[in-house]
Amino acid sequence: MTPEGIRSAAPEVAYGVDIGGTKVLGIALGPSDRILAEARVSTPPVRGEGVPGELADGSGAVAVAQAVAVVVAELDASTGRSAALTPEEAPTVGVGAPGMLDRQGRLRFAPNLQQAQGIDWYELIAGQLPGRGVLIENDANFAALAEHRLGAAQGYSHVLMVTLGTGIGGGLVVDGRVQVGGHGFAGEIGHMVVDPAGPPCPCGRRGCWERYASGGGLGVMAREAALAGRLPEVVRLAGGDAESVRGEDVSAAAASGDEDARRVVADVGWWVGFGLANLVCVTDPECIVLGGGLVSAGDLLLDSAKAAFVDLVEGGSARPDTVIVTAAFGDRAGAVGAALAARHGGLWA
Amino acid sequence: MTPEGIRSAAPEVAYGVDIGGTKVLGIALGPSDRILAEARVSTPPVRGEGVPGELADGSGAVAVAQAVAVVVAELDASTGRSAALTPEEAPTVGVGAPGMLDRQGRLRFAPNLQQAQGIDWYELIAGQLPGRGVLIENDANFAALAEHRLGAAQGYSHVLMVTLGTGIGGGLVVDGRVQVGGHGFAGEIGHMVVDPAGPPCPCGRRGCWERYASGGGLGVMAREAALAGRLPEVVRLAGGDAESVRGEDVSAAAASGDEDARRVVADVGWWVGFGLANLVCVTDPECIVLGGGLVSAGDLLLDSAKAAFVDLVEGGSARPDTVIVTAAFGDRAGAVGAALAARHGGLWA
Repeated sequence: MTPEGIRSAAPEVAYGVDIGGTKVLGIALGPSDRILAEARVSTPPVRGEGVPGELADGSGAVAVAQAVAVVVAELDASTGRSAALTPEEAPTVGVGAPGMLDRQGRLRFAPNLQQAQGIDWYELIAGQLPGRGVLIENDANFAALAEHRLGAAQGYSHVLMVTLGTGIGGGLVVDGRVQVGGHGFAGEIGHMVVDPAGPPCPCGRRGCWERYASGGGLGVMAREAALAGRLPEVVRLAGGDAESVRGEDVSAAAASGDEDARRVVADVGWWVGFGLANLVCVTDPECIVLGGGLVSAGDLLLDSAKAAFVDLVEGGSARPDTVIVTAAFGDRAGAVGAALAARHGGLWA
Repeated sequence: MTPEGIRSAAPEVAYGVDIGGTKVLGIALGPSDRILAEARVSTPPVRGEGVPGELADGSGAVAVAQAVAVVVAELDASTGRSAALTPEEAPTVGVGAPGMLDRQGRLRFAPNLQQAQGIDWYELIAGQLPGRGVLIENDANFAALAEHRLGAAQGYSHVLMVTLGTGIGGGLVVDGRVQVGGHGFAGEIGHMVVDPAGPPCPCGRRGCWERYASGGGLGVMAREAALAGRLPEVVRLAGGDAESVRGEDVSAAAASGDEDARRVVADVGWWVGFGLANLVCVTDPECIVLGGGLVSAGDLLLDSAKAAFVDLVEGGSARPDTVIVTAAFGDRAGAVGAALAARHGGLWA
């Protein structure tokens, strides 16, 4: 690609980076919303436990910001931007991160990313990307944007995006726009309490929906079942130790037909549907998009979730169907939405 | 008032009627949003129990529509419109009703107004008001409009209206507009399930928020406490029969200092705050407006609700305060909002 070609194409290219619990994933979005390049590195590990409401020491967050910069450099290289770039040539970077991000890009609260709690993501990440435009937003809000504009929820004006990962994230499309609420914190649906006497949550409360219906929740339920002797085949697969059973082990055993594992996956699916029914009462979307790693548990989980939803939603038979689909962009939804927002200057533009 | 005066003032006047569980309340809204007149009649009694999802026989709903027409006639008389009116002179009527109303004004589902379930409110009510413009909407959506435009939530762009009556209704203001979701059913917050093993709800499910945090919920909790021997003074006030204790009896006893009654009211307040915390996770309003009859239980309930909310909301100390206020229009909020929408041609205009 010639320098001239790069220069003229630059405004058409934007980057999106999604900071997840296990990986930092970047994509370069080109003209006609084509994915030009992709890069990923592991998310730097937690360093010490954050305390809810208090600042983390920042070391973990700095490492995460550096990982974002590594991903951006890889995208530059892949798209032929390795040389020194003028601001016009450097694509703007949208960065999605979990938790309660305020409108200035500060992370107010993040039960599942406590090493970064209280961190000013904007300052840290922009500091790693001198001269670049940087835009920070909650990851599920970006995922909602991607699925609404380009993915599984195209054509719907009212959409609920639900990311079933380590925890549960949410993004709301209301009347055609991704909405983030009065302080930027809308869509923290994983911390809707569904049983006040339920198990403790890293957020400090009990019985949050994500304790039951996320990838993490599947792991917890699987270990409980394993310890109670109800998952002998899964425990064997996990090396014989019930305590070390993970959600993935149960998904794998369920996929190969193990009845005990299938029961646990179906139970988690029931909880997914239960929470969706609550959320539909509140926001009444036309379409729900399910994303995140738990979706890979497959049809058993999705069918169970859909059946529970229809059974549980208020006025079930009297209301029009709410369409439930899986994310068209899979685990790239957050990064694609981040790039879209970076190109257009925000969630609404 | 001269006929000329009436004619020129007519476009400035609109009527709002709120169909409640106990009364049908109408107001005439004049220039500068002044309340010109008010009228109210008792809501006709339930005739037989509706079955969720099935059509009612319509007799109860016809009586309700006739009550709306009586209220409108009283407003005509009070504002000097007793003579035959041309369409230009007849103020448009906004009518608020509880439950899941679709965009055509049909009541799809209403656990607390089962005599009207399945009814085409628009057809019935417009039939009683020949020649008038009629606009039908969920009552809490109208209350949200009134409080947002003229009442306790003026100046906020993201508002949650919560009506704590026989059940719980909800209205959402998102980015400055009352939003009703993809099918008109948004804000059915009373049927968010907060305990899957909780008591049965008329909607057919268990553990709905309104079983705990509404006026009806207060009555249920009071009777439970009375039957368990924990409310001797309240039972005495209610005539000696624990089964006949009503929420109002507990509120009255609590107001006069009865410790047992105060404990029940505070418990209900805790459930109010619990549900608000869930809803704030989902929608992140800047301001919550509490309306409905339960608000008259007073500061004890409100203080308990606010304390529980702050304690329970995700990231409590790390997030900006969510303002919690009571409805400026009290039990007129729905009717005022109905009149506002009638004048402006809809919730958004």
